[in-house]
Amino acid sequence: MEVYHLYSGGKDSSLAAYILRSIGYEVKLVTINFRVLDSWKYAKKTAEALGFEHDVIFLDKKILEKAAEICIQDGHPNRAIQFIHERALEEVAKMEEVKRISDGTRRDDRVPMLELPKARSLEDRFNVQYIRPLLGLGYKTIRELTEKLFIIEIRESEKLEKSDYEVELRYLLRQKGIDPLSIFPKRHYQSRVLGWKEIY
Amino acid sequence: MEVYHLYSGGKDSSLAAYILRSIGYEVKLVTINFRVLDSWKYAKKTAEALGFEHDVIFLDKKILEKAAEICIQDGHPNRAIQFIHERALEEVAKMEEVKRISDGTRRDDRVPMLELPKARSLEDRFNVQYIRPLLGLGYKTIRELTEKLFIIEIRESEKLEKSDYEVELRYLLRQKGIDPLSIFPKRHYQSRVLGWKEIY
Repeated sequence: MEVYHLYSGGKDSSLAAYILRSIGYEVKLVTINFRVLDSWKYAKKTAEALGFEHDVIFLDKKILEKAAEICIQDGHPNRAIQFIHERALEEVAKMEEVKRISDGTRRDDRVPMLELPKARSLEDRFNVQYIRPLLGLGYKTIRELTEKLFIIEIRESEKLEKSDYEVELRYLLRQKGIDPLSIFPKRHYQSRVLGWKEIY
Repeated sequence: MEVYHLYSGGKDSSLAAYILRSIGYEVKLVTINFRVLDSWKYAKKTAEALGFEHDVIFLDKKILEKAAEICIQDGHPNRAIQFIHERALEEVAKMEEVKRISDGTRRDDRVPMLELPKARSLEDRFNVQYIRPLLGLGYKTIRELTEKLFIIEIRESEKLEKSDYEVELRYLLRQKGIDPLSIFPKRHYQSRVLGWKEIY
């Protein structure tokens, strides 16, 4: 049972990968990249540290361009992040070999988050299973599990060597002469997983 | 990390128990009973077959009486099942030793199902974590996993030796001179787990 798991190297997507592997899936981590930065390399490094197979999936830069437009229009990044994530899920789901896709979205997330009709639509349109191991877990549960499992580095978003959509989106905004801090929250801490606390 | 898991012996609550144990929890299965029938014994048997610790938690029969009133009034069982499940979660959550509770509710269930505000309220009121391992899994995923893991017996609800709320609720309705088939769907298949296909 192979599952393609959207992976940023952060603690949520790492925890979801751990759960999937623990219950018997063959987990293939995939990191989305738009060829704007080589920020996928941080996720690859973490994936290797955790002992997972990892690939990069390059998507059309037009998706990122459109997301930049959306967040400039909105003055905040939520709808843009949601837009990228939906496109990412669709692009992975439509790949011939993909029967199961997953991500690290959590119960208490606002974005990215597929409401039930959209989740079912994704499954039906692409004939895949969409698995969200963290959807039934609250923030306390996730904090407890990730603190137990992982060595985690926490820094401000602006400084962190990360692989999520935000990194390339901020870079593209800067290229367009827009200060990402006018759109993203100023002190927004994010995490990166460096490895296991013990071997799992 | 101990978790008290509401357990009926069915495939959903068994799968949820398997996931919890796989990711590192010490899982204590608890079956709710109202002392109307000794139907808890089927869940205990399955729990033992799967190698889990199991206890019965007896709740006040007034809860079941109230649920019977609700489903007589409604002509179908949904609101009554939801009512019992919410009371069951609260009663377990308020126990001194309980820090984490869980159940086998799934993404595609209508009842029982706690919407997000109710799930958070449960956590806040009783200072527990409420964990739902199946909330991010669709019916195809659950079918695939349970078929892989468990030897399952499928029969009509009316005939099955089960331990869920429905069994005692149907019995109480019959005692009141009401045909459960006037309230519950006529051909409603339910499942019971008999054991592992392999040892996990």
